[in-house]
Amino acid sequence: MKNLLDGIEDVLLMGPGPSSVYPDVYKALSRSTLGYLDSYFIRIMDQIKALLQKLMRTQNELTLAVSGTGMAGMETCLVNLLEPKDAILILINGVFGTRMREIATRLGAEVDVLEFEWGTPVQPDAVEKRLKEKGYKLVAMVHAETSTGVRNPAAEIGKLLKASDSLYLLDAVTSLGGIEVDVDGWGVDALYSGSQKCLSCPPGLSPVTFSQNAVKAIAARKSKTPSFYLDIDLIGKYWGGEKRAYHHTAPMNMFYGLYQALLLVMEEGIDKVFARHLKVHETLVQGLEKLGLELLVDEPFRLPMLNAVKIPEGVDDAAGRSALRSKHTIEIGAGLGPLAGKIWRIGVMGHTAREKNVERLLAALGDVL
Amino acid sequence: MKNLLDGIEDVLLMGPGPSSVYPDVYKALSRSTLGYLDSYFIRIMDQIKALLQKLMRTQNELTLAVSGTGMAGMETCLVNLLEPKDAILILINGVFGTRMREIATRLGAEVDVLEFEWGTPVQPDAVEKRLKEKGYKLVAMVHAETSTGVRNPAAEIGKLLKASDSLYLLDAVTSLGGIEVDVDGWGVDALYSGSQKCLSCPPGLSPVTFSQNAVKAIAARKSKTPSFYLDIDLIGKYWGGEKRAYHHTAPMNMFYGLYQALLLVMEEGIDKVFARHLKVHETLVQGLEKLGLELLVDEPFRLPMLNAVKIPEGVDDAAGRSALRSKHTIEIGAGLGPLAGKIWRIGVMGHTAREKNVERLLAALGDVL
Repeated sequence: MKNLLDGIEDVLLMGPGPSSVYPDVYKALSRSTLGYLDSYFIRIMDQIKALLQKLMRTQNELTLAVSGTGMAGMETCLVNLLEPKDAILILINGVFGTRMREIATRLGAEVDVLEFEWGTPVQPDAVEKRLKEKGYKLVAMVHAETSTGVRNPAAEIGKLLKASDSLYLLDAVTSLGGIEVDVDGWGVDALYSGSQKCLSCPPGLSPVTFSQNAVKAIAARKSKTPSFYLDIDLIGKYWGGEKRAYHHTAPMNMFYGLYQALLLVMEEGIDKVFARHLKVHETLVQGLEKLGLELLVDEPFRLPMLNAVKIPEGVDDAAGRSALRSKHTIEIGAGLGPLAGKIWRIGVMGHTAREKNVERLLAALGDVL
Repeated sequence: MKNLLDGIEDVLLMGPGPSSVYPDVYKALSRSTLGYLDSYFIRIMDQIKALLQKLMRTQNELTLAVSGTGMAGMETCLVNLLEPKDAILILINGVFGTRMREIATRLGAEVDVLEFEWGTPVQPDAVEKRLKEKGYKLVAMVHAETSTGVRNPAAEIGKLLKASDSLYLLDAVTSLGGIEVDVDGWGVDALYSGSQKCLSCPPGLSPVTFSQNAVKAIAARKSKTPSFYLDIDLIGKYWGGEKRAYHHTAPMNMFYGLYQALLLVMEEGIDKVFARHLKVHETLVQGLEKLGLELLVDEPFRLPMLNAVKIPEGVDDAAGRSALRSKHTIEIGAGLGPLAGKIWRIGVMGHTAREKNVERLLAALGDVL
């Protein structure tokens, strides 16, 4: 039987994620599998926790990687923090805020939203006004909206929420490892991310953290968390505590990959990694502008790692992406939802965020357009 | 910073899973990551689906791998098939039946159970009697109870359920790839498995399949599936159909590993793989008996791939396992629940199921006891 794996090309991944994976992470993935309660494996889990705490800037004990993708992380936060009828305010300016609304609605929560135009950031004033009108158990926002390339004001919203009784849930899927994320400083109570963006590990894991206040809120639930697989109390007892208890069989090899990716970030230095993302973003933007391309997002609100470019008039969305993929072995991303066909999404995340990759993309775009 | 990955030993995994991984699967894990809608990646997904259909003996269109471990597969089946107040009968003779009860209860279903002594199989007579007394939307059973090593009568229960209106849910986490699983022949409506048992891929994926009747029952739900991440309708639309839609970012590299593992099973031949498991099991049992060890389960109900051995009087459970691990680099499993401290669980699954591995274990056991 033909083995399709032999035909996999080494594609430069410049879409919205996954990003191109560090060579050392690929090596890590193929290290020997260990048992899920093997004491050596548990040492690796402990290190993953410590490295995530450092990268997230938090002392939270309940910091770990959920055994699923970023969407599993989103659901883990919502399913543990929300009970039916709980009031949640979701700040929406893209696909991933919309997803949070969908999940919270399925959980039977009382869901309010504040919507902002896609491509523009959340406005703290509007949030402040709403918080004066109504109290919420949970307020949720996406830090880096992967569907638009907008950076939302995570610190400012945190400041507003510190003056309230609301818990603060932040989606850091695309931001973690690429720009500052300051869980304790911003007063974030629950945060989830993904392994496949600025950490440049393949998809499959979702780093999460929960504050003491979040842990208290979960302990005070009237009903059990409806999901067993994503029950953070049980997952936490596998990841730590006095007696490790079997909850599920951890995906060891993915854990190895995440561990290696986090080590690489620490070896380079967190601040240097952030600076690299910013510098590469600037090179990219200059190059795009030289090609006559326009960005969707105004300069002050742009994410370095995710750049939404307006597709020029007369250029076919799919044909353009397809030519990049087939002729230049580069992937860029399509627009989602109302932005489908209108924008391309160019990611410079993690190992992808290199000057040489941007130069290669710009040359290829010049050829294709 | 010290890299713990450099100290990982090549442990012979003879516990309840993960099993030792095929060398070619390790290689597959480190193939280049592709985009989640890359057309070449979708070809690999299509092949995984076809290979799973063949191994599961089913024509079910809705056959795929859930992006989580076997526990995620269990929850996927229950969360999609059950609504609050739906009646489910769970046949319990071990930890994993108990887990189904836990999940079904959290989902607000009306849960009935029939319990059988751990270490003995489910009795079809008792099930038949119960089905005459009460109708159920869903009847659920574990095929291969990993906590005890018992093989439950999957075909017989299927025959009973064909004469009823109940859907049939089967846990095949430990059985798939090691003994016959005949989804269409047995009339199974929903089945989940795991990548890390007889398929010898690392943990992280759960193969599942749903029959047409199961799909109809899901389409007839009054309420949306409470889990978005495990919503099988949405996952199915990513795995197939006319227009692939983004649901989550698939864990590509794990998919590569599962694909390679399935190819290896097909190359060896499904029946030959089953015969190898059986032969290695027989060698193991003979060797254990020579060492004076007694099996928990009576001969006709034993699983080939999971062997529960009574810990001899005077032997310390943890010390014995620890000596095997540290001195002989072999992992075997502890007992769970009421069997903790009373049994060891010896797995001969997938790539672990080799005569030489059994010989190595028997020699090590002889040394340790």
